Amino acid sequence: MHILLTREFAREYGQRALSIAPANSQLIYLDPTQEALPAELGEADIAYLSLDLMGGQDAAGAHPRLRVFSRAIEHAPRLRWLHTQAAGADRPVLQNALRRGVTITTSSGVTSETVAHTAIAGMLALARGVPDWVSAQSRKTWRTPPRAQWPRDINGGKALVVGTGPIGQAIARILRAMAMHVTGVRRSRDLLPGFDRMLDFDQSGSALPGVDWIFLACPLTERTFGLVDRDFLAKLAPHACLINVARGEVVVDDAVQSALRSGSLGGYYSDVFKDEPLAATSGWWDTPRTLISPHLAALSRGYGARAANAFFENLERYVQGEPLRNVVAAPPAPGSEKPL
Amino acid sequence: MHILLTREFAREYGQRALSIAPANSQLIYLDPTQEALPAELGEADIAYLSLDLMGGQDAAGAHPRLRVFSRAIEHAPRLRWLHTQAAGADRPVLQNALRRGVTITTSSGVTSETVAHTAIAGMLALARGVPDWVSAQSRKTWRTPPRAQWPRDINGGKALVVGTGPIGQAIARILRAMAMHVTGVRRSRDLLPGFDRMLDFDQSGSALPGVDWIFLACPLTERTFGLVDRDFLAKLAPHACLINVARGEVVVDDAVQSALRSGSLGGYYSDVFKDEPLAATSGWWDTPRTLISPHLAALSRGYGARAANAFFENLERYVQGEPLRNVVAAPPAPGSEKPL
Repeated sequence: MHILLTREFAREYGQRALSIAPANSQLIYLDPTQEALPAELGEADIAYLSLDLMGGQDAAGAHPRLRVFSRAIEHAPRLRWLHTQAAGADRPVLQNALRRGVTITTSSGVTSETVAHTAIAGMLALARGVPDWVSAQSRKTWRTPPRAQWPRDINGGKALVVGTGPIGQAIARILRAMAMHVTGVRRSRDLLPGFDRMLDFDQSGSALPGVDWIFLACPLTERTFGLVDRDFLAKLAPHACLINVARGEVVVDDAVQSALRSGSLGGYYSDVFKDEPLAATSGWWDTPRTLISPHLAALSRGYGARAANAFFENLERYVQGEPLRNVVAAPPAPGSEKPL
Repeated sequence: MHILLTREFAREYGQRALSIAPANSQLIYLDPTQEALPAELGEADIAYLSLDLMGGQDAAGAHPRLRVFSRAIEHAPRLRWLHTQAAGADRPVLQNALRRGVTITTSSGVTSETVAHTAIAGMLALARGVPDWVSAQSRKTWRTPPRAQWPRDINGGKALVVGTGPIGQAIARILRAMAMHVTGVRRSRDLLPGFDRMLDFDQSGSALPGVDWIFLACPLTERTFGLVDRDFLAKLAPHACLINVARGEVVVDDAVQSALRSGSLGGYYSDVFKDEPLAATSGWWDTPRTLISPHLAALSRGYGARAANAFFENLERYVQGEPLRNVVAAPPAPGSEKPL
């Protein structure tokens, strides 16, 4: 068995990989800071897209290390399985490998608690006015809001969580601890733990008028692409706020910006945007009632170790001939719902 | 029965007060924007310190309306019972009335969910770097933190909640939904719902070295005055963060500021300070790793209605001769633990 790992990942985890793999297995070391690919690449049958490959985003938003890794995957004809540190598989390197028959598995779930905490951080920042605290503090100004500007109560409010995977479930659990009523939106109506109620996508429109907080925590699919459009927003109460930890493409930028500028949407916190990094000229920076974070919702110190664990658990299954966890479905027939 | 209410409160709630009070009861109307006191004040036997009395803080931090109310209470010799909208009874008007034998009841609990949400907002802002998001956004700058600066995981962390009343219990419930281990600190070791473990004040020092987050949600007493001093802080890990939604006097300002400046304390969020409003010259404004809010933790739109409900529930009990809820204990003998 030949396993392609980055040199950095192998330094910390190479022994663990070899201890799981059959005797006589070999590691192939990729140095993603070098254009040259490893000579043994033709032998690789397993690869791990480790977290260190995501570092080094350049000014245009490209990941030079990921580009080297992508090229390595293209030059590994025997590759049978590729595991990624990410929760999703929408990156081209993964989709391309999937199309040529490589099994793709994700680390779905390993960052879900962190993403949920970031989503709640954004919600509470909007709810309690944290951006105002920060700017008043920078001006050394104490300003208790007058009674007419006191925020709405969080407890007793209604939340809609679009996407009920591990992230949506963690968000729901925390919202319920804040005494909110939580409705989930998913493909089926089966109730999952942590939710008060479940709707499918077709029914969810009817729930919008009564909602105080909407969380987008869904994968990007044909169903969720452009989900939050002018019609969606028109159904909301003007105080309702939107939290996006899914993908920038789930919202229609113009529609959300217009709603925020006209006051028909109460607030927007987003960690994700169609074009990242956001250019200095982006209209998002100064859209009113908008809080922006730079695609960091999943980042925490425990991420790398948890993703490595997910890879090694699957490696054990692979070696034992057991079914792998978090296998990405092969691309569906054209026209049906599929990852973009 | 003669009930002293502000004119503003009586406009909305006067009929409800009269519907609960015995026949022939009368309302006495206080206009706290006028120095002149009501002529019938000598008849008042009940008074309500309503939320509108808290408005109008002047530049020096004084509440002119509250000053008029305090004078009214001094000139109401027959007063037997005074209910306050606040959760605590540390204001001089209440303590003075208590000393002359007036029964004081509070609205303890009506703002506890809101205060807990504000405390968690501050925690998550420190944990996820919200102040950095806000300042980067104001500069229209996208900056994903490099891996060395990724924040610690919240889940799996250890929290210490000092004070286990309604606020501390709500905080604990939310922290546990974020997969943290939560220890409460109170006078006794009896376990309350929502906590994993309970310590009394004497034992709590031993827990400090392993703690990631400390929440101060206790009343101000001789026991908690200056609780967070140099010795307390010296026991903490340098990444530990402190959240204060109790009173400014619970911490020793110099000790906390030194710890933040030297890097031996990871962060501080405080809604409360010894001298409010904080002067522009206060050292707090630019203490590193510090997030400040202007004593707004309890403020939300539902506050006034919930406090009014607490008053009217007690008024029914008063009329029926039943024991009142949230009665403030008479000042204890000198030297024992007492509200300051």
